[in-house]
Amino acid sequence: MKRIDRLIAITEILLSHPNQLFPLGVFADRFQSAKSTISEDLIMIKDKLLLSNRGFLETVPGAAGGVKYLPSISVEEASSFLEKLAQTLNASERILPGGFIYMADLLYDPRIVRTLGLIFASIFRSRKPEAVVTIETKGIPLALMTADSLGIPAVVIRHGNKVTEGSSVSINYISGSSKRIQTMSLARRALDSGKKVLIIDDFIKAGGTAKGIISLMHEFVAEVVGLGILVEDVLWKESRLVNDYLSLLEYGDPSTDQPVIKAKTQVLSQIGV
Amino acid sequence: MKRIDRLIAITEILLSHPNQLFPLGVFADRFQSAKSTISEDLIMIKDKLLLSNRGFLETVPGAAGGVKYLPSISVEEASSFLEKLAQTLNASERILPGGFIYMADLLYDPRIVRTLGLIFASIFRSRKPEAVVTIETKGIPLALMTADSLGIPAVVIRHGNKVTEGSSVSINYISGSSKRIQTMSLARRALDSGKKVLIIDDFIKAGGTAKGIISLMHEFVAEVVGLGILVEDVLWKESRLVNDYLSLLEYGDPSTDQPVIKAKTQVLSQIGV
Repeated sequence: MKRIDRLIAITEILLSHPNQLFPLGVFADRFQSAKSTISEDLIMIKDKLLLSNRGFLETVPGAAGGVKYLPSISVEEASSFLEKLAQTLNASERILPGGFIYMADLLYDPRIVRTLGLIFASIFRSRKPEAVVTIETKGIPLALMTADSLGIPAVVIRHGNKVTEGSSVSINYISGSSKRIQTMSLARRALDSGKKVLIIDDFIKAGGTAKGIISLMHEFVAEVVGLGILVEDVLWKESRLVNDYLSLLEYGDPSTDQPVIKAKTQVLSQIGV
Repeated sequence: MKRIDRLIAITEILLSHPNQLFPLGVFADRFQSAKSTISEDLIMIKDKLLLSNRGFLETVPGAAGGVKYLPSISVEEASSFLEKLAQTLNASERILPGGFIYMADLLYDPRIVRTLGLIFASIFRSRKPEAVVTIETKGIPLALMTADSLGIPAVVIRHGNKVTEGSSVSINYISGSSKRIQTMSLARRALDSGKKVLIIDDFIKAGGTAKGIISLMHEFVAEVVGLGILVEDVLWKESRLVNDYLSLLEYGDPSTDQPVIKAKTQVLSQIGV
């Protein structure tokens, strides 16, 4: 097999299997080449990836080692994506009675949430989360795509206490904005004890739900290494029940002349740190 | 830029942006090459993709044309994936009281649902769906990953009538297995009239929910071009309310000596047809 063919084939295999470790021997056998030749190929692919900013190759040394492709996004691409998303959300036809903004279509569009997940993954990867936790329903696609970019499982907390998946842990929490008592629950089997978790959700107002999720994580002896939110409601900033979070968009006062949704591109400086 | 570098870079760009159309001019400008040179590069990349069975390049002719990468999976890889998934699900520690099988962890694991979505996409792509429709909660990751592989949006129907996303359409339906009357609803804005839709769900028993989704789709003047289910309960086969569906796994009688979950690898012959 010609070198050029092999390079294309290896690039295709790695990029279509993000976060999956390939021992060098797999490529050596498949392409009937020496491991040292494969090593040289990987250096070339690695260099090109660094140029395109679409991720990087991680080399794991040792007998159980190999190479894997970790997807990422550049600060520039993430920034222009968020600006464009804010612009889309500010379209007048999206404003619903009560000042709400219709965004469910975007939250379920993989072409949008795939990139948002990649942004969250690029920001939080260095904290080494082992699972991405969210609560049903609208946060699920965001959490799933973040988990996909990180190569780790997602865990979905259910509202109420209707879990029919073996024994579960339930907690009551107070929604900070509506002041209602609600219940959330998670199957015991859904998350092993002692894991590092990243919490992802679509919206934060008073933060009662986020605080509830954090409490539930304590029941699983989990360490919360990050809290990523797509949209934060700035009107609730002063009375927020949680402080240590990172949001990508800001929802402002709809009665002013300002755009209701603003991109918080300054947080993107944390990408890849 | 050397040809080998350009080939790697184009492969990386295409594979990290599935289903996105790139005009040849984009690559010509970026790599300061003639369009005819880029065309030759794309033929090489296309040939390699056919060999690896991880998808194919589609060339769209004309002024608005270009090239895009459509992800796919080979029958062999899909088949061994389903066999392994069935084996995982048959592990004794997954059996819950009442003969249920715990599978939520797998349904939320992107490493599993990404491949399942790719299988559904590869089977249903030729029917040209314009949206993937599901109902909350456990079907969402499957539907999202199928939509992602197809490059189209997902649409999530909510239980009950609690949608606060502008006007919505609700229907009552009878769950075929529990015989209870339930409500499902979808925001008017979530789906334009007259679209071709693919319905994806995680489980089918009597099929009351699937029948309900089909009725709701009629309210949106949608054409249902396919119904893909992860697990079908064979105990309900005779009295099923819908017939035209495709399932990847079978749930059998837990009181027999047979494995409870079986892979239906024969349906994979429809991949890429």
